[in-house]
Amino acid sequence: MTAATSEIRAMGARARVAARRLAATPTAPRNAALALIAARLESEAPAILAANRADYEAAREGGLDDHMLDRMFLDERRLAGVAADVRSVLALADPVGESYDARTLPNGLRIERRRVPLGVIGAIFESRPNVTIDIAALCLKSGNAAILRGGKEAARTNRALADLIRDAVVEAGLPEDAVQLVRSTDRALVMEMLQLDEYIDLVIPRGGADLVRLVNQHATMPAVTGGIGVCHTYVDASADPEMAIDIVVNAKTRRPTICNALDTLLIHSAAAPELLPEIAAGLGERGVELRCDPAALEILAGTSGARAVPAGEGDFGTEFLALVAAVRVVDSVDEAMAHIEQYGSGHSEAIVTSDYESAMRFLDEVDAAAVYVNASTQFTDGAQFGLGAEVGISTQKMHARGPMGLRELTSYKWIIMGDGQTRPV
Amino acid sequence: MTAATSEIRAMGARARVAARRLAATPTAPRNAALALIAARLESEAPAILAANRADYEAAREGGLDDHMLDRMFLDERRLAGVAADVRSVLALADPVGESYDARTLPNGLRIERRRVPLGVIGAIFESRPNVTIDIAALCLKSGNAAILRGGKEAARTNRALADLIRDAVVEAGLPEDAVQLVRSTDRALVMEMLQLDEYIDLVIPRGGADLVRLVNQHATMPAVTGGIGVCHTYVDASADPEMAIDIVVNAKTRRPTICNALDTLLIHSAAAPELLPEIAAGLGERGVELRCDPAALEILAGTSGARAVPAGEGDFGTEFLALVAAVRVVDSVDEAMAHIEQYGSGHSEAIVTSDYESAMRFLDEVDAAAVYVNASTQFTDGAQFGLGAEVGISTQKMHARGPMGLRELTSYKWIIMGDGQTRPV
Repeated sequence: MTAATSEIRAMGARARVAARRLAATPTAPRNAALALIAARLESEAPAILAANRADYEAAREGGLDDHMLDRMFLDERRLAGVAADVRSVLALADPVGESYDARTLPNGLRIERRRVPLGVIGAIFESRPNVTIDIAALCLKSGNAAILRGGKEAARTNRALADLIRDAVVEAGLPEDAVQLVRSTDRALVMEMLQLDEYIDLVIPRGGADLVRLVNQHATMPAVTGGIGVCHTYVDASADPEMAIDIVVNAKTRRPTICNALDTLLIHSAAAPELLPEIAAGLGERGVELRCDPAALEILAGTSGARAVPAGEGDFGTEFLALVAAVRVVDSVDEAMAHIEQYGSGHSEAIVTSDYESAMRFLDEVDAAAVYVNASTQFTDGAQFGLGAEVGISTQKMHARGPMGLRELTSYKWIIMGDGQTRPV
Repeated sequence: MTAATSEIRAMGARARVAARRLAATPTAPRNAALALIAARLESEAPAILAANRADYEAAREGGLDDHMLDRMFLDERRLAGVAADVRSVLALADPVGESYDARTLPNGLRIERRRVPLGVIGAIFESRPNVTIDIAALCLKSGNAAILRGGKEAARTNRALADLIRDAVVEAGLPEDAVQLVRSTDRALVMEMLQLDEYIDLVIPRGGADLVRLVNQHATMPAVTGGIGVCHTYVDASADPEMAIDIVVNAKTRRPTICNALDTLLIHSAAAPELLPEIAAGLGERGVELRCDPAALEILAGTSGARAVPAGEGDFGTEFLALVAAVRVVDSVDEAMAHIEQYGSGHSEAIVTSDYESAMRFLDEVDAAAVYVNASTQFTDGAQFGLGAEVGISTQKMHARGPMGLRELTSYKWIIMGDGQTRPV
């Protein structure tokens, strides 16, 4: 056992002890910790921003691409946004201790399900420092201990944030190991962490496909994976043209780098000749390249402003995370749904239609975490769905599907209160 | 790839197709299939019992122990009980399509969670033929396809039951591959099955600790494991003596071979001198051997009828599944809870007390699927808890905890109905 292995095992053991104490902690000190974290993000902004600047300069010199640099960057405004997010988690109802399905059985036993924290959450994420605070806040609010492992590019920022969290947690009277950061950026530690099923109840990877694959292959504890969104919007023959343009442009371009962004536009052959050029012009204006099947390419041949090129092998089924979309013309809602079944990742899928039956069939038959009629897939988000915040978006079916908020960080136990009942033979 | 591997992969692919059709099937044909299964269990009883007799004789000649022989045995009465179980599943509400958390967001989006089947359930179980029917019934009712792999001792019985199920499913108009039995009893196929994450959404092992360990180590899809119950009943200083005797005797002896049976009796040192001999006499009368810590042994030294022996290493933390219990005298509810934390398996734990604070602390602090005050742990059961039936009992925290009924065989998807909403930047 290497020193690093034994250190991460020790962190796991400390997290387990902290989790037991947290589970028995009432709401007030957990909320107090969140209030202190939010206040300190503001009062300690200079130190945090200095750490972030050092990370940023080192990453830029190291050649990190602009997209990643943007994600790791903090300024006063972004830091204020992170503090505001913590306060909105603070304002949510405490999920812990909630009772449901409570009833009295015919034999007089009073039975209920009572929500309890999961225990210890392991989070592995890339270099977005806001994730460090978001996950810490959601775990504290839901009574879970957390072990965080962030990307190496933001190491200085994450250490500063972890120190701030620890101080706030201790001042609020919570166990100091409630939130621990893996301070070493040795990649081997990720593998060690994935073997700690004795101490970590759930691991949540937040990052790209490589990270998700690593976790699926090697984690010995349950994992909630997702965040890979190959998302389709299908424009039906009956779609309102203006609505279709608005929804498609929003789904692709509002933020092209997030997992709920449109990747493939499917459009009915009856609507395509008139509508596709208009949609393509709207997208082209915002710099979107369209990788088209032959039918779409033919329709767009003379469209000024459309950036249409032939689709290559693999464009369908790709999560672009960029100003690129694939386009295919289909002849029916069935063909659209068959395409989605073949190429989708079960994240967010939409239909734009004014036909009732097509809308209902799409909702019933498409198998994805979020299925939309006449709205942009960019709404798939914990805050937008009314969950207050999210630790991630699950594309699996077990435990939680779609945005994971506080409730999805809990389990339950059965509580049975009797007055001497025994079970008849 | 061996012939067997390719055959089980083909079963998986067929199950996936069947699952898609089942998910879109209304309640009526699924209920019709259950009614037909129940009717045929009665009308085809002679053929099923003949197959079971052949299994039974072969197993007896092969030296299978009496306990296992009893579990695999069917007669008219047991078969009628299985048919009755199917009819009670039939009578339950359809979980599929249920909407919850439905609301309209400030932007006008109508959002809800809608319950959907998980997809394909893989069940691996030992030689109890009633499990074949129970799991098939629960999966059909909840719109899931099933791949069943039963123990080899009951192979003839299981084949007869699988034929009956398939006929009923086809007659009801459901896909014929909705429920498939792995007909070969080659043990290597269990390992193949555990690798079919492409086709099997959830695997449920129902069997002993070896099977659970095999699944935890090798399954590449999610598994809900449990059914290993190291269950404690703690008799507090304030316990009503008659109630304590009734509950402990019931928890141990009603059915000693099931996972919710008492394994260790913890008793407060203030109550033990008077009460332990009475409890021990009640247990001794029913043939229960008590493996005692030194304090309990001393108290029971002169008790007639008590079968007290010194506890050996490992008796605490053992699931006996037999007329054996460990006994330990403790000095407080804290000591009892610390013992349970160290030795329990998170299944079912009980306190017998008339002290309000001890009761509340036990409910709050003991971390198990089912936590009882003043009742027998033998109630941990899907039917007893009002779930109608169960596919198993989970001792994990993700997805489902405790008895798993129909709802626990479902996931949900988010349904979002708009009229053109786009997400603001």
